[in-house]
Amino acid sequence: MLDPSSVKALIFDVFGTVVDWRTSIARESELVLKPKGYSLDWLPFADAWRGEYQPAMEEVRSGKIPFSKLDVLHRRNLERILPRFKVSGLDESTLQHLNKAWHRLDGWPDATPGLQRLHRKFMIAPCSNGNISLMVDLARRNDLPWDAILGSEIARDFKPKPRVYLSACEAFDITPAQCMMVAAHPRDLAAAAEQGLRTGYIARPHEFGPGKGPKEPAGPVDVMSTSVEDLAGKLGV
Amino acid sequence: MLDPSSVKALIFDVFGTVVDWRTSIARESELVLKPKGYSLDWLPFADAWRGEYQPAMEEVRSGKIPFSKLDVLHRRNLERILPRFKVSGLDESTLQHLNKAWHRLDGWPDATPGLQRLHRKFMIAPCSNGNISLMVDLARRNDLPWDAILGSEIARDFKPKPRVYLSACEAFDITPAQCMMVAAHPRDLAAAAEQGLRTGYIARPHEFGPGKGPKEPAGPVDVMSTSVEDLAGKLGV
Repeated sequence: MLDPSSVKALIFDVFGTVVDWRTSIARESELVLKPKGYSLDWLPFADAWRGEYQPAMEEVRSGKIPFSKLDVLHRRNLERILPRFKVSGLDESTLQHLNKAWHRLDGWPDATPGLQRLHRKFMIAPCSNGNISLMVDLARRNDLPWDAILGSEIARDFKPKPRVYLSACEAFDITPAQCMMVAAHPRDLAAAAEQGLRTGYIARPHEFGPGKGPKEPAGPVDVMSTSVEDLAGKLGV
Repeated sequence: MLDPSSVKALIFDVFGTVVDWRTSIARESELVLKPKGYSLDWLPFADAWRGEYQPAMEEVRSGKIPFSKLDVLHRRNLERILPRFKVSGLDESTLQHLNKAWHRLDGWPDATPGLQRLHRKFMIAPCSNGNISLMVDLARRNDLPWDAILGSEIARDFKPKPRVYLSACEAFDITPAQCMMVAAHPRDLAAAAEQGLRTGYIARPHEFGPGKGPKEPAGPVDVMSTSVEDLAGKLGV
């Protein structure tokens, strides 16, 4: 049984856990491409773009290419999927604005009030594969009261590599046991737990579409919750 | 003449510019050491501790020792000055708590309201030689609404080395010309300007004691101001 007073900081997965990337990317892509005359299936477009996410990061994790900010990988992934949707000839400023759709994601409704409660008692930071400027834009858009922006750009590698979790603990000057990784994704939690971090699961049943959320963790986690607000309550805030 | 709309982010020196380290360190040292029976001259004690700051960082900047967080350097500096003040035999937890006096500094009165105004229009971050956890504690104590914690720990080197300023611009994904370095110290501003950053000077005439503040910049700066609030006004916020 977890003693909440042993936890000094919570670090969060962001895409899917704090923000709803899927409907946001669909909306933002439509806002950019519809005025150009395109009428795509916007949700499948979002899914296709996100589908390139893990393979792109795997090239960095495996050492095949040097570390690149997620903005750079998103752009490469975008150029990979546009032909599949028969989109071509976009000018550079449109491509840049479209790529920055990932900076314009909306939080799940519970995210901001939940983080504001947690921030009263704990240090909180994103521990995302997104880059710092992307995290800053999401925080400004959604009023996320982060104490610092940690994660891949600090660690120069991507989750679930151990370095990403450990560099966040080091930045806060705490032991892994004093740090809780919070995510909707069992793989992220399992990798954090392997480094000695505590784990908090937030169920996001609609991340990939209604009822198509990630599977629940197979192994034990310290706190199971249904929202950031529920997590705050379970940690006594 | 600077066009404020060309500036996307402001990065701040912290010790002396945002917070009053001298009276805070004197007060915190007294709070820790007086109950142990010591009655020092607390302001000279603060000055002596701060006096070891630049020489310690110079060992990192010159490559003599690897990068160390400022907390580590502060601790070494503390152990260097304690004998001079005839303090000895402190136990480990007292030494740790005393060393963390640097995490308990108070902002100058204009800092919090000024940063809150600037935050509405600009991205803002510390670009300090302090480490991330130190900056987080100062932000939580003083309600400083930073968007991210940048500076030495991200750059793995200390100002005025170019890398520290440039890594802050890179984290925000902006050019140096879109970034303003704000400091009470001419040397810090000159080093930032050399890398192409804009500069904002804040006069802190009492940093080293009444009327003993740093000299005014000899070269040109983009904005001269007397407080963070004055700076906000001059940038149109």
